[in-house]
Amino acid sequence: MESAESFSPLVVLELVSDTQEGAITWLLQRIRDKQRDGGAELLVEQLGPGVEVQEKQNPNLFLIGASLQRLLSGAEDLGLFKQFNDGSMRSFTCANKHNFKDFQGDGDGFLSMAECQYIIKHELDTLRAKDETHIPGYTQAKLYPGKSIIRRLLSKGIMVQMFPLHEKEELKRLSFSWFKKVKLSHQPLDDIRHYFGEGQALYFGFLEYFTFALIPMALIGVPYYLFDWEDYDKYVVFAVFNLIWCTVILELWKRFSATLAYHWGTLSRKKAFEEPRPGFHGVLGFNPVTGREEPLYPNAKRQLRIYCVSVPFVLLCLYLSLYVMMIYFQMEGWALSVHDEDPTFWTGILLFIPSIIYAVVIEIMNLIYRYAAEFLTEWENHRLESSYQNHLVLKVLVFNFFNCFASLFYIAFAMQDMALLRQSLATLLITSQILNQFMEAFLPYWLQRRRNKKMIRKVKKTTLEDRALPLEEQVRLEADMSTYLGTFDDYLELFLLFGYVSLFSCVYPLAAVLVVLNNITEVYSDAFKMCRVFKRPFSDPAANIGVWQLAFEAMSVIAVVTNCALIGMSPQVKSYFPESEMQLILWTVAIEHSLLALKFILAFLIPDVPKPIQIELAKLEFESLEALKKKKMLETSELSKALFSS
Amino acid sequence: MESAESFSPLVVLELVSDTQEGAITWLLQRIRDKQRDGGAELLVEQLGPGVEVQEKQNPNLFLIGASLQRLLSGAEDLGLFKQFNDGSMRSFTCANKHNFKDFQGDGDGFLSMAECQYIIKHELDTLRAKDETHIPGYTQAKLYPGKSIIRRLLSKGIMVQMFPLHEKEELKRLSFSWFKKVKLSHQPLDDIRHYFGEGQALYFGFLEYFTFALIPMALIGVPYYLFDWEDYDKYVVFAVFNLIWCTVILELWKRFSATLAYHWGTLSRKKAFEEPRPGFHGVLGFNPVTGREEPLYPNAKRQLRIYCVSVPFVLLCLYLSLYVMMIYFQMEGWALSVHDEDPTFWTGILLFIPSIIYAVVIEIMNLIYRYAAEFLTEWENHRLESSYQNHLVLKVLVFNFFNCFASLFYIAFAMQDMALLRQSLATLLITSQILNQFMEAFLPYWLQRRRNKKMIRKVKKTTLEDRALPLEEQVRLEADMSTYLGTFDDYLELFLLFGYVSLFSCVYPLAAVLVVLNNITEVYSDAFKMCRVFKRPFSDPAANIGVWQLAFEAMSVIAVVTNCALIGMSPQVKSYFPESEMQLILWTVAIEHSLLALKFILAFLIPDVPKPIQIELAKLEFESLEALKKKKMLETSELSKALFSS
Repeated sequence: MESAESFSPLVVLELVSDTQEGAITWLLQRIRDKQRDGGAELLVEQLGPGVEVQEKQNPNLFLIGASLQRLLSGAEDLGLFKQFNDGSMRSFTCANKHNFKDFQGDGDGFLSMAECQYIIKHELDTLRAKDETHIPGYTQAKLYPGKSIIRRLLSKGIMVQMFPLHEKEELKRLSFSWFKKVKLSHQPLDDIRHYFGEGQALYFGFLEYFTFALIPMALIGVPYYLFDWEDYDKYVVFAVFNLIWCTVILELWKRFSATLAYHWGTLSRKKAFEEPRPGFHGVLGFNPVTGREEPLYPNAKRQLRIYCVSVPFVLLCLYLSLYVMMIYFQMEGWALSVHDEDPTFWTGILLFIPSIIYAVVIEIMNLIYRYAAEFLTEWENHRLESSYQNHLVLKVLVFNFFNCFASLFYIAFAMQDMALLRQSLATLLITSQILNQFMEAFLPYWLQRRRNKKMIRKVKKTTLEDRALPLEEQVRLEADMSTYLGTFDDYLELFLLFGYVSLFSCVYPLAAVLVVLNNITEVYSDAFKMCRVFKRPFSDPAANIGVWQLAFEAMSVIAVVTNCALIGMSPQVKSYFPESEMQLILWTVAIEHSLLALKFILAFLIPDVPKPIQIELAKLEFESLEALKKKKMLETSELSKALFSS
Repeated sequence: MESAESFSPLVVLELVSDTQEGAITWLLQRIRDKQRDGGAELLVEQLGPGVEVQEKQNPNLFLIGASLQRLLSGAEDLGLFKQFNDGSMRSFTCANKHNFKDFQGDGDGFLSMAECQYIIKHELDTLRAKDETHIPGYTQAKLYPGKSIIRRLLSKGIMVQMFPLHEKEELKRLSFSWFKKVKLSHQPLDDIRHYFGEGQALYFGFLEYFTFALIPMALIGVPYYLFDWEDYDKYVVFAVFNLIWCTVILELWKRFSATLAYHWGTLSRKKAFEEPRPGFHGVLGFNPVTGREEPLYPNAKRQLRIYCVSVPFVLLCLYLSLYVMMIYFQMEGWALSVHDEDPTFWTGILLFIPSIIYAVVIEIMNLIYRYAAEFLTEWENHRLESSYQNHLVLKVLVFNFFNCFASLFYIAFAMQDMALLRQSLATLLITSQILNQFMEAFLPYWLQRRRNKKMIRKVKKTTLEDRALPLEEQVRLEADMSTYLGTFDDYLELFLLFGYVSLFSCVYPLAAVLVVLNNITEVYSDAFKMCRVFKRPFSDPAANIGVWQLAFEAMSVIAVVTNCALIGMSPQVKSYFPESEMQLILWTVAIEHSLLALKFILAFLIPDVPKPIQIELAKLEFESLEALKKKKMLETSELSKALFSS
């Protein structure tokens, strides 16, 4: 079973402990087989037993690696972009590997470990069944020619997980430069990308960008708080600045992210054809694009499920959320009246009860809704992981938006109580920040530490002197770490913070200050969590922040409407139109419309990709066209030569 | 000078009559030279003298053609998409030419004449100077290696024009099926595309689509007129239907146009690198993309010109236009008061004077503005023809929109006189239609016919019996025909008509009926004008209607705002909110915002490309990726074989 070659393990594959022996032998064989025989041509080795064999351990952990040559050819298959000698980014090919900038000798160190792990993941994902009808030993786990083996193993629960290994040394270096020293410099985005991949690095890039972008707003907001400016003239100035600023920073982020993605080689990389996600099911048929056999599921049926079940369900949940909110306001009104009638200690406590109940109910609803959304999106049976993610994000986004902001909207526009609005906004913002930081980083860290300590204590019993954990223990330790579930929750948090800053900015200018402070701690806690709490995630070669860009832009459009309405409702502005409320509203609407128009024109005028990157991309395009032309000419001349000689 | 081979002439090239002999010899030589020597490898022949040599004729007319082989290889260079044997559209290559559907024998008739002419135009456009420093005989007409010769000849005024020849027989067939018989069938879009190219065909496709799309609105509008419904409940229904309908038809047009473009092979065709336009000037430098020597002009300077001169100028013109409008309304008020005081025949005539003056002034302003816009856009010195066109379209569009609709907006929202609005709308719509049809088709046709008759009379003197014109006369006749200036004015007209239909639809539902009637005659007059009045235009391989899609969408957004405002202002709706105008406005604004949101969601939900076309495109993409992979594998195995044998 053991491979004779020694290799550096990159990825761990864990099967359930009672996997059939036949299935294991077959799987390892398929992984080791040459590519021309339909295998993945990777190196694989079973993990040796840990220090304490007496304890019940899963023996079915496999280390996977690959030869340097295999990794390079995998990089070419994936179309990875690397820096060329002339500084431009080009698709890597083995044929002219020596023209790439960091390629030295046999190419050791040319690909980062994250890239190698991504390549191995891709190779395993595209390892396809040949003529097997089922997984050996599992007659119910059906296979058909072209079916991805790993996906079938996952969907049948035979494979527990597949994860890339951490690099202890590199991680130590990264953590040191990232969050160990308190400093006023940028994050080491390139190193983050090098270790965690582009998706992660873009998230941290966005987090940092967002923080810096909010600093002007925070600085302008401080005097409003310090001098207690209640002057609405000044609020109008702040709101208008705020709205234009939001548009500009979102547009500039697109440019910044395009620059990052270009230098990381993901901007112009062609996406490989996307495989169906593991959970996708349907009647076996032929994919119209690839011609391969795979499950098919009629699009009409999916649309029906989305529009007839999911959409009504989401609307119902939103209605329920509104209903709960109304009950909360009634309860609060009732508590207030009781306290006013008979102000004792007990009625004083009663005042807090509605808020506590509301907060708890909201948390519970959020949790239930999240499960329901995941279930529904799974049930919608999307073929692609990306479309599954988009539908899930949309569902969760809308509901979270409602839960967070509905009460604020109610206070602002139905009760028109600006003092209460400011107070609620501050309370919500501060409590949610504290809760988030706690739930997100410190709690999992504490749990993880307890587990680590147990493990280390165990290990120390046998290898008392050796401080460094042996590989076996390290792998088992990492296998037990929590799985990082992607940047979804992190972006969601930023999205809601952005809402607090932009939606009611003209009422509470201090929000930007709070969000800036939060983001600074967020950088540290997120970095900490990535490096210490979670398994290393597979890198995800993202070129932008995807659907979140859209979400942030939508938020900034809503912010225009709310801010204009808030300003229009302010007594100071009202006093300008003493006799006619109609005039006031018409002016407000007119200004709102022109701000919206300005927003769209700004978004249209600012190019999404900076000029230098545009030129680089055009150059690449032009060169490939010219090369094609030249190649054709060569072929023609060769053809004529051949005709001449015959 | 004459080429020995006989060929069918495709394109005519006209130089000024006093061109230096050296320049002509040199140019013809460069056109005839083999491609490997940097020539265009085309066939060229001087046009013989006409029948009446005594008259002063330009001798420098040249007929250009090409061998079949040359045309096919040109089609490959251009990446023309043709139908493959399996029905899909693929980029044509000479290597597998026999796998294309209509390729028979040596490929005669495989390329349409329009395609051949487009290929020749491309080859001439990309005919570049080698080591010439200037055009022989013209020391001031500087050349540098890589400069397009034709563009220099054009910009120095040595070349008068280059135009493709009509095909008498084909044109006769096309005209017959297109506009000669009055019928209730669709236009022969494929034939139009075959003869005039994709850009023209898309325009006519859009015109027809637009007409059909308006029919439901026209049908619903008729009873409003017949039964004199003044009921605003019904108007609300009509307006809401109208708004959603406009969004839906614009979205569906994108899908329809994608389908057309796919079947015409322009949807996925890669655009060749765009050359600088002939008028572009700057300091000689190296293009950062191609590395070729060409004039460079700093972008910052252009932006400065646009934002500091063009934008203020446009705004000033808009202000002027508003000012003229206000004078018109004052004059009309004055005339009305004079007539009311003393209603005689002369004061009755006086009532018409302001309208006539206003109409004349508007026409004059439009004309002057058009020249100014062209001058300014030229002065902005855009590198690309496409960006020049976009800037020109935007300038003209905004001004025309203002000129056409400002008075209607004033009547609707400042005067709030719905009866006058309806009357003005009807008057404007009908007169502009009649004027347009006259100015656009019949006037040029009449001028052309006079010229033709003179020519035919001349010819008949010598060749009395021969009814068909000899080639020489035909070419000279076509050289004298007006040049078709592109679809700009046609789209502009449709755009304004769309404005009449959508902006105030809830006031004048009959507008849709009038526009439908107009469009039906427009199809005929435009078809007539294309076939009879103008020189044949070079085909323009467009994949969509470009900036006009955006313009129509912007109009439909504005329409939501105006219609909501009109409905909110109506007395019937006002009577629902007897005590509070504020409530009314708030409701109107709320409904307007939700309609706008609905619009954007609809636009987002409806995919721009129909599913079957998406699948076809994905298939092509997938196949090219697979082919690349396979090719790579083959190369690797060949490499290993080579290594093995050595």
